[in-house]
Amino acid sequence: MSAPKNDTFLRALLRQPTPYTPIWIMRQAGRYLSEYNETRKQAGSFLELCKNPHLATEVTLQPLARFPLDAAILFSDILTIPDAMGLGLYFAEGEGPRFERPLREEWEIRNLDVVDPDAHLRYVLDAASQIRKALDNEIPLIGFSGSPYTLACYMIEGRGGTEFHEIKRMLYERPDLLHSILDVNARSVVAYLNAQIEAGAQAVMIFDSWGGNLSAAAFREFSLAYMERICAGLKKEQDGHAVPCVVFTKGGGQWLESLAACGADALSVDWTTDLGDARRRVGDRVALQGNLDPAVLLTNPEVVEREASKVLASFGKGNGHVFNLGHGVSRFTPPENVGALVDAVHRLSLPYHQ
Amino acid sequence: MSAPKNDTFLRALLRQPTPYTPIWIMRQAGRYLSEYNETRKQAGSFLELCKNPHLATEVTLQPLARFPLDAAILFSDILTIPDAMGLGLYFAEGEGPRFERPLREEWEIRNLDVVDPDAHLRYVLDAASQIRKALDNEIPLIGFSGSPYTLACYMIEGRGGTEFHEIKRMLYERPDLLHSILDVNARSVVAYLNAQIEAGAQAVMIFDSWGGNLSAAAFREFSLAYMERICAGLKKEQDGHAVPCVVFTKGGGQWLESLAACGADALSVDWTTDLGDARRRVGDRVALQGNLDPAVLLTNPEVVEREASKVLASFGKGNGHVFNLGHGVSRFTPPENVGALVDAVHRLSLPYHQ
Repeated sequence: MSAPKNDTFLRALLRQPTPYTPIWIMRQAGRYLSEYNETRKQAGSFLELCKNPHLATEVTLQPLARFPLDAAILFSDILTIPDAMGLGLYFAEGEGPRFERPLREEWEIRNLDVVDPDAHLRYVLDAASQIRKALDNEIPLIGFSGSPYTLACYMIEGRGGTEFHEIKRMLYERPDLLHSILDVNARSVVAYLNAQIEAGAQAVMIFDSWGGNLSAAAFREFSLAYMERICAGLKKEQDGHAVPCVVFTKGGGQWLESLAACGADALSVDWTTDLGDARRRVGDRVALQGNLDPAVLLTNPEVVEREASKVLASFGKGNGHVFNLGHGVSRFTPPENVGALVDAVHRLSLPYHQ
Repeated sequence: MSAPKNDTFLRALLRQPTPYTPIWIMRQAGRYLSEYNETRKQAGSFLELCKNPHLATEVTLQPLARFPLDAAILFSDILTIPDAMGLGLYFAEGEGPRFERPLREEWEIRNLDVVDPDAHLRYVLDAASQIRKALDNEIPLIGFSGSPYTLACYMIEGRGGTEFHEIKRMLYERPDLLHSILDVNARSVVAYLNAQIEAGAQAVMIFDSWGGNLSAAAFREFSLAYMERICAGLKKEQDGHAVPCVVFTKGGGQWLESLAACGADALSVDWTTDLGDARRRVGDRVALQGNLDPAVLLTNPEVVEREASKVLASFGKGNGHVFNLGHGVSRFTPPENVGALVDAVHRLSLPYHQ
């Protein structure tokens, strides 16, 4: 298969020259789009939407019909792996993801098996290949997974956004048990992302949503070490093309130097980090993705353009920047602000690439 | 008035020699203590407890009767100022603080008045002087307030822990309005903390609980700048003794260099920051306070001692460290773990002060 016609996203991740700064948006296929809400209603639920390759393809393409984005991202969830392990992923209305059967007993942890994506996550791979086909080589497709530590948070706590008392207690009292879970998770993520790459993903991203809640030392031991193992185990090429890998530790701005050495091609950074400062710290080891405050998209096109121009100026001249938000787009975002952002980034970034 | 018999806390904040590393614990008078829950029940509610100087004194002293802590902290809330402005602070059971009348209209913002602590926050000043008297010069008393930005979050959102959409929208669309609120807040905090100092507080702390949610540039403009103004306006001495000031921006680990220049004597840091790394970054400009992960206190005395020793080792030899948690103590903490922590810090820190 050939490279996509618009390969600016892949080139930027590899720090190669591009005519402008490419942009995509975390959760670009999401609830801020009325057509997404329609399709989701048709599917019945978020999870049924994820598990239906035909509808997952439909919603993946929806934002692309509205905005000239430079990448598409597989419509799925970061928690498909623990769901495939049998923990029972569900979504309570108005709340985040939860598991019916979080890990409570040592024997449950000892019994965890590495997930075989071909057997248990076929629906994701089918969606990836169907979306890739539907994209018709216009723009690249991103595959993704949660990080081993972030998956473990949900597997142990049963939900996100807690104070993480259960997993922290295990981390400090029974690190052997947590390492056992993380080892199974890491091996599962490698197999899963490699299967996504074989099914059509042209870049992959690891979402470490909760690693930022660890102490610096615990982050290195319980999150970063396993992302390093994943980066080392990922396919570097498919069909003769490089497959870049992006790592995103939300709240990880303090640890960019060690993140830059984890084997990823690029780091996604949240909005609390000054992008120019981040660039000085990581040097030419990785590209950077980010990092507009998602709340900017709640305002109006003038403010969006002004704040986008600040992010571009902060990164400065040269290659290796993929524009994105510092976190997923809010469901309360007026779609016209997303249009204004994509337009502003494409237009205002031209001088930085001359 | 003379210096307290145990002045290790004050000396450490001023980076003067101490025989061991002093320790106190954020929320040390709190729900993990059964005697606190008893007194709170007697008071009727958390807010009535705050507003009753006699009972506030009682709960302030409770942890000191159990543990040889090196400082006491005024029992109060970070949100007394907006309450005094008439916004109606209340606590819904099992949830955080809320305001009945959050700021919604421009005229409400234009009408905000600087709080006169003598007129509107007499109960806090009475508690401070009563506690100071009850401490009988054994250990120093800490006064505190929320930061102007953190107060504004609650004043605009009506509650904490949100996605901060309302205040962020104002910040990006109507920065003039937000600056107007922050100006009133900063002037109120200066008057309030100076009144606490006159009433008996021997050190003060500014809690910037939500500044860490801002972009780097917005943090400087909307939170740090106002904390600088407060530090510049605070009394530096009372009764011939220096009154040190501590600033704590939770999630502010990326900005320690600029925080170290804000005029505070010490920075409190959360557990995500490596303390040795923080010390190298701030040099001898400020002392450091922190930063054990509060979740460590959910384990057992052996783990507590092991993890406390790591924090001490990370800071290393020399002066300028006040031991604390990286955030408030959890209500689920077994009190014996707090005892083990205080003992471990006093004992294990001796070699670092020789």
